[in-house]
Amino acid sequence: MSELDTPPVGTSASADLTPEELQLAARNHGMPLEALRYDLTPAGLHYLLVHYDIPEAAPDTWHLEIGGAVDRPLTLDLHALQSCREFSLPVTMECAGNGRARLHPRPVSQPWLFEAVGTARWHGTRLRPLLESAGLRSDALEVLFTGADRGLEGGEEQDYERSLPLAAALDEDVLLAWGMNGAPLPPQHGYPLRLIVPGWYGMCSVKWLRRVTVLTAPYRGYQNERAYRYRQEREEEGEPVTRIAPRALMVPPGIPEFMTRNRFLRPGECLLEGRAWSGHGAIARVEVSDNGGRDWSEAALDAPVGSRAWHRWSYRWDARRPGDYELCCRATDVTGEVQPLHPVWNLGGYAVNAVQRVLVTVTAA
Amino acid sequence: MSELDTPPVGTSASADLTPEELQLAARNHGMPLEALRYDLTPAGLHYLLVHYDIPEAAPDTWHLEIGGAVDRPLTLDLHALQSCREFSLPVTMECAGNGRARLHPRPVSQPWLFEAVGTARWHGTRLRPLLESAGLRSDALEVLFTGADRGLEGGEEQDYERSLPLAAALDEDVLLAWGMNGAPLPPQHGYPLRLIVPGWYGMCSVKWLRRVTVLTAPYRGYQNERAYRYRQEREEEGEPVTRIAPRALMVPPGIPEFMTRNRFLRPGECLLEGRAWSGHGAIARVEVSDNGGRDWSEAALDAPVGSRAWHRWSYRWDARRPGDYELCCRATDVTGEVQPLHPVWNLGGYAVNAVQRVLVTVTAA
Repeated sequence: MSELDTPPVGTSASADLTPEELQLAARNHGMPLEALRYDLTPAGLHYLLVHYDIPEAAPDTWHLEIGGAVDRPLTLDLHALQSCREFSLPVTMECAGNGRARLHPRPVSQPWLFEAVGTARWHGTRLRPLLESAGLRSDALEVLFTGADRGLEGGEEQDYERSLPLAAALDEDVLLAWGMNGAPLPPQHGYPLRLIVPGWYGMCSVKWLRRVTVLTAPYRGYQNERAYRYRQEREEEGEPVTRIAPRALMVPPGIPEFMTRNRFLRPGECLLEGRAWSGHGAIARVEVSDNGGRDWSEAALDAPVGSRAWHRWSYRWDARRPGDYELCCRATDVTGEVQPLHPVWNLGGYAVNAVQRVLVTVTAA
Repeated sequence: MSELDTPPVGTSASADLTPEELQLAARNHGMPLEALRYDLTPAGLHYLLVHYDIPEAAPDTWHLEIGGAVDRPLTLDLHALQSCREFSLPVTMECAGNGRARLHPRPVSQPWLFEAVGTARWHGTRLRPLLESAGLRSDALEVLFTGADRGLEGGEEQDYERSLPLAAALDEDVLLAWGMNGAPLPPQHGYPLRLIVPGWYGMCSVKWLRRVTVLTAPYRGYQNERAYRYRQEREEEGEPVTRIAPRALMVPPGIPEFMTRNRFLRPGECLLEGRAWSGHGAIARVEVSDNGGRDWSEAALDAPVGSRAWHRWSYRWDARRPGDYELCCRATDVTGEVQPLHPVWNLGGYAVNAVQRVLVTVTAA
């Protein structure tokens, strides 16, 4: 099968979603792609993935413990945290599983197509000064972040927790956030406190954050060692999933058919627009194709919404000729990494950043 | 197959979801059931169903036309509307398709399990005084509400629009809303203006409302005549889907397994709680079963959150004995209507209000 022979619509070729995947798809949600029009994704449109349940938060008794390999362990309540120097930053966040449902065979988990992304301005304070004031020991290696959400996964009962290499945790843009787009965090996004790790997939940005533990040995817990690794076979150790691979998405033009989401457009010039981002740095170029990826044209690229957030792109598409088109867009970041034309399989379905494909019928005038 | 022989988990017995259904499930979203703990559902947790795309709103140029069979057609901009007498009301809203994915065979559309519900306080002004000031003609029969969202459905290109019988449109609690839970409407919930029809399924509460047209003959458009009707076969005329059937839901107790959402609980007494509502009036009773509906016990029922909103209910469950349980809850409203134990099929999958079933394992201490 050649690269251009795969099914044209951006969905799984198989149609055998399990009841378990449906339960996840009904709870969690993506960002409807027309919301790419906003620099900052409004509350409720930002993608959401919750591993276990949204915990009930008691802000008056909430506190954050900073401990482990530090000289002076800290316990901070919300008031103390909010007395720290404020910092806010627009951050594009994407789920590591975005694109998973386009694989064949499809890894059974939250079945994302394209839409597990969003950009918010997160309000809080930088993590680094707090770690420094706790006094990092010289043998510190990783930092573990523990949330208040608890469940079973892979047969293990666990608090949701993820570790970061020390250097990543000390990035000046990592923040402890209590606000989103100028309002308090919504419960589902981590109220009253969450971690934000710009540039890394969303599983690092631990919600309902209760504990920060500095480690002197690699963390061996479920979410680092078993989940979120690139593997071809279950027995492999695999490589950890870390930074966000480049991706461009477009606002689907015209109007949709309710069920298929296929698009219909009156003939004429059509301004295609969307967003592009990468966790490895800025976007260098975005290209657009109207014939399924055979020919590509350069899109105009705006400055990013912030140093850790997406760019808007646009392209004047000549859609004067009625007919069926398969629109694609693809991003290349400053490191030279470019999106593949078709999904590249891995066991967990992580970082599946193949180009978006949108079927559009230009109707008769 | 006896009533108690159907598959215990509250999902479709079939596992063959189509790519089209997955696309809808990724765009739209339910309310994670732990959010039943809130009297008012926070932004982003309220269920969302959008037929076409979320339109881009220009609040400065937005206006509402009130016309058709009236003596004095009105055109009101947002400022004029917001100068009208304010009115706000907590309203429980549910999608008519809630429960659809539990049918077998499953009608192919947005695949809801249990979670297409939410309660918000909607802020705006009453519709009735505006209709009266426009001067309803004596032959007025229905009122048609037209949104700004446009798409194809059933082969017809259309603005989303739905008609209400005149008496329903004149209900004093019907409102034109520009706010939700004390904030402006989010884009996905109809910014800058939507209709709210308490007690009726959500398809009546037209979002992005642009036009109100008083009709002197029954409306024959797609969303009233073809969609949203109770039918057994496609050729039938069927009965219109109108008010919300009674339903109770519980916050699933204990902690979940990520993929199956099955629940695990330490032994002891467990406070089960949830919400119950009906579009036909208040809830008269809620019952709970821990053996799949064989035996039922009465739950405590709180006063409703408002005259058009859900009640909280609670029940002290004796969960001291380790083992597997199938928890159910069911509501009866003041008209005597009670939820069925198992889904009752109809072609569109509307008002499938069979009791919720939650598998819980009480673990060893």
